[in-house]
Amino acid sequence: MHFLMRGDLTEVRRNGIFVRGEGENFRVAKVNCYNSTKEIGPCDLVVVAVKATSNADLVDLVPPLLHEETMVLTLQNGLGNEEFLAKHFGARRVLGGLCFIAVDRHSKTEVERYDYGLVILGELDRPAQLRTREVAAEFTRAKVKCSVTDDLALERWRKLIWNIPFNGLSIVAGRIDTAAIVGDNNLRQLTLDLMNEVIAAAKKCGHPLPSDAWREHIKRTDNMSGYKPSTLQDWESGKPLEIEAIWGEPVRRARAAGTQMPGTEMIYELLKQLDRARQSR
Amino acid sequence: MHFLMRGDLTEVRRNGIFVRGEGENFRVAKVNCYNSTKEIGPCDLVVVAVKATSNADLVDLVPPLLHEETMVLTLQNGLGNEEFLAKHFGARRVLGGLCFIAVDRHSKTEVERYDYGLVILGELDRPAQLRTREVAAEFTRAKVKCSVTDDLALERWRKLIWNIPFNGLSIVAGRIDTAAIVGDNNLRQLTLDLMNEVIAAAKKCGHPLPSDAWREHIKRTDNMSGYKPSTLQDWESGKPLEIEAIWGEPVRRARAAGTQMPGTEMIYELLKQLDRARQSR
Repeated sequence: MHFLMRGDLTEVRRNGIFVRGEGENFRVAKVNCYNSTKEIGPCDLVVVAVKATSNADLVDLVPPLLHEETMVLTLQNGLGNEEFLAKHFGARRVLGGLCFIAVDRHSKTEVERYDYGLVILGELDRPAQLRTREVAAEFTRAKVKCSVTDDLALERWRKLIWNIPFNGLSIVAGRIDTAAIVGDNNLRQLTLDLMNEVIAAAKKCGHPLPSDAWREHIKRTDNMSGYKPSTLQDWESGKPLEIEAIWGEPVRRARAAGTQMPGTEMIYELLKQLDRARQSR
Repeated sequence: MHFLMRGDLTEVRRNGIFVRGEGENFRVAKVNCYNSTKEIGPCDLVVVAVKATSNADLVDLVPPLLHEETMVLTLQNGLGNEEFLAKHFGARRVLGGLCFIAVDRHSKTEVERYDYGLVILGELDRPAQLRTREVAAEFTRAKVKCSVTDDLALERWRKLIWNIPFNGLSIVAGRIDTAAIVGDNNLRQLTLDLMNEVIAAAKKCGHPLPSDAWREHIKRTDNMSGYKPSTLQDWESGKPLEIEAIWGEPVRRARAAGTQMPGTEMIYELLKQLDRARQSR
């Protein structure tokens, strides 16, 4: 396993990576990291874990890693990432995965894990192939719970049922965590309205999520201690926000399918505005 | 003319009131002010200019001012103020007025005027009576442009076409003025969507505003220099926000009429949340 590191390379080489969390704490003292994909060279599987806001960098970063059969797996949030990879590296290579896990990076070398999660893998516009199951088996061997889906796009929308309200409200409602959102009657109702809006838009876009698909998300969040969604973490650490992948692209796809997502659109516009103001400060 | 002053009494008695603005600056050296309505005693006309968030205070403040024929005129923003006065002091007394003016209080004794405006007067659930025209004539005599409407409720909704988006976005989009809102393509579109939502809700509530009633508001705002809506002024000076009158009551009336205002509802919920967070800081 080879890790490309950019801003974090020196510190990780010096200190390794600490993972903290309930029940388990460990340090990976020696991380096999590189600061250039040219040093790494061709691999069987490229796992894309950069923020969607850095996708443009992939155009140069990925090619040195590719041989004829290399798979490119994105574990990013939101919509449009598989399509971006397909456009640049060929659709047949592209796999996508959804990560259900609550983690936070406290520094370049420290990861806080609040909850063990699950990774769901699938392929772009195809049912899962044998290779997807083999990749899933590798995750499982590494003790990461992993399952496979034949309908990746459906699962992407299913995850948005959570990300669109929680990541969004965590910012626009004044930098608050999930417990503050589900614990307030009005914000909870707003969350449910947004979840139903996502489910309706997914249906219109040809991804028939069950009407009560919101239920598991609320239940999971009620059982979670207060968690800062990734967008709030990004905000607090001054990093770019994944606005287009999580809100912009769903809004555009809904419009293209002849419907609208008024709540999501408002969050989308507010986030862009708040982000611009933050950057100009 | 008698002014009830509460927190401002001492300073206004000492310094008078300064009014600044393009083309005209003047000082009212001696303001006829009181710190109790009992000292003032019965009047022909009571003008209510407190924030809607202080309405509960009126229950004790107003009665010493009333004789048999006293009119009570609210110049407050939003919906529900006339009804509040009617409930406590009798519907027949109640007049309402809309103020179109851009002003800002820089201190207890300084008013900055950005634009001369207009006051529109009407009666609660009745066409304008002779007395309304007499009050309007008094405003005109005092050099305040003033007109009379036979449909106060319609004009209240017409004013909300402006207040709901601009007062709301000025807070939830990150404390920005009107120029920042109309000058940004996305926020401008969001404003237009909200304006159309208000017009549609007004129609459902029995107040048939013309479909293009948004146009005058946008035009006026485009021609205005950047202005901080009253809610943003209140926010910046740590005062309560008129959330229920401007957003809560319209949302409730729309629901009672069998329709919804999803954009307005989102702003309403976000404002309540941001306000709570501000107060707990």
